[in-house]
Amino acid sequence: MRDLSADKDLRFLSLNTATVRKQGDLPAILDAARRHGISMVSPWRDQVHEIGLDRAVRALRGGSFGLSGYCRGGLFPTDDTHRREVRDDNRRAVDEAVALGAPCLVIVVGGLPQFTRPGSAASRNLADARAQVADGVAEMLDYAETAGMPLALEPIHPMMAAERSCLCTLRQALDLCDTIDPHRSRGLGIALDVYHVWWDAEILAQISRIGADRMLTLHVCDWLVPTKSILTGRGMMGDGVIEIRKLRAAVEALGFKGACEVEILSDEWWSRPIDDVLPVIIERYRTVC
Amino acid sequence: MRDLSADKDLRFLSLNTATVRKQGDLPAILDAARRHGISMVSPWRDQVHEIGLDRAVRALRGGSFGLSGYCRGGLFPTDDTHRREVRDDNRRAVDEAVALGAPCLVIVVGGLPQFTRPGSAASRNLADARAQVADGVAEMLDYAETAGMPLALEPIHPMMAAERSCLCTLRQALDLCDTIDPHRSRGLGIALDVYHVWWDAEILAQISRIGADRMLTLHVCDWLVPTKSILTGRGMMGDGVIEIRKLRAAVEALGFKGACEVEILSDEWWSRPIDDVLPVIIERYRTVC
Repeated sequence: MRDLSADKDLRFLSLNTATVRKQGDLPAILDAARRHGISMVSPWRDQVHEIGLDRAVRALRGGSFGLSGYCRGGLFPTDDTHRREVRDDNRRAVDEAVALGAPCLVIVVGGLPQFTRPGSAASRNLADARAQVADGVAEMLDYAETAGMPLALEPIHPMMAAERSCLCTLRQALDLCDTIDPHRSRGLGIALDVYHVWWDAEILAQISRIGADRMLTLHVCDWLVPTKSILTGRGMMGDGVIEIRKLRAAVEALGFKGACEVEILSDEWWSRPIDDVLPVIIERYRTVC
Repeated sequence: MRDLSADKDLRFLSLNTATVRKQGDLPAILDAARRHGISMVSPWRDQVHEIGLDRAVRALRGGSFGLSGYCRGGLFPTDDTHRREVRDDNRRAVDEAVALGAPCLVIVVGGLPQFTRPGSAASRNLADARAQVADGVAEMLDYAETAGMPLALEPIHPMMAAERSCLCTLRQALDLCDTIDPHRSRGLGIALDVYHVWWDAEILAQISRIGADRMLTLHVCDWLVPTKSILTGRGMMGDGVIEIRKLRAAVEALGFKGACEVEILSDEWWSRPIDDVLPVIIERYRTVC
């Protein structure tokens, strides 16, 4: 296991750019990250699209930024009318991740079709959504494997099962990995966000099941009490109740050498100047992560 | 399996009295239930305490109401200073359930101590909370078994893990039953609320594990999209995305003969007159439950 105390020089801190998405576009975020000594990021697709892929690639390379991931592909459940469109969109996400030099593409699998891909026919059938996800991941993996881009399945908190992800637990994600890639050879693994899994009584047992080969990226933020918004009520590390260091240590114990990526979707933190937010992230990374 | 279509005469509909807690006290709720042909209820402790146990017993008997449960005991995690107080409070809950003639006492186990029992020393240690729950349930079961009162462990949605319940899944609840009562002889079982478990990919497999002997009470409401409040944003059956009938059928397939208890904690429904709410409950019970 890596000595966690040695990380505190920021080499292993990554900024998920959605954390400060309301404060500026991707170049502005990269400028601010650089000012504060952050050299690794994980951008979102809409932020890349906003300025164009080529410009995003140049901005990242120009600033010598490393990437800890690219957010995000997936959102599979839809209806027959839209299935090809979803497949093509996911292939473009893989191509973008390759162009950006990301180590993995984070996959949020989607929930019920009408919320996952608005315009799709409505359904309450979560089992069918899960079958679509299994098929969708398998098909996408064929493309991603050829492109050399690992796919990182992210289990998402059960409170978002209808809207964002019918993949709700780490157990379920690992079972899906075992089904689609039983020989662990095709670049299918896990994006683990402590926010989504901290509540799970079997989380330590399931983390030990991941293996270093499938542990692709680690996200952190905190669970606030009370949580005022299901989608945008996440907390700064240390402000909530998650035992972040305990979970990170379990992930490091697998042999994971990747970054600690800060992803905070929060109306509160989005309302503050970026030069106020980044120092707090760095201080909390050093003291509680 | 019982023919579900034969239930629609309301014999198996129970009103959890928290559903209309803002509209009146327990006698007012019972009067309204009677007016609308509902003959089964499940009262909450604070509603009983408000009018006194003796008066509550008389009101229930006077109206010939059956009970589907009594809400609720548990909330175990605390600190050493308050532990005896919690134990005694739970013993009183058992005594009250006996006096009221309830078929079971619903147990919501509690989350972190500072939210479960305000005034307790704060902790982020959810594993310790779970250990306290295991000890607390075991001790309480000694008392309840002697009193002849079954305890119904209710898995609660993971979004309430910190505040209400570190028992988050049916699997976890059944594992706890197996640990504390391996011979299934002591009156320990499950309160299953579709709202808390509908998202779970293994819910049907876990329901089949319950067994008729441990299936003590069934609660229904619906999951709204979007969900605006974690504690009081539940929906009327049919207004959300839960496949209620599919889950109820799985429970009935166990041989469960109990009621379908409607428990809706909702700012929206609390704001409407009781004589408007109850007909909607009855109509939705008939059409979607």
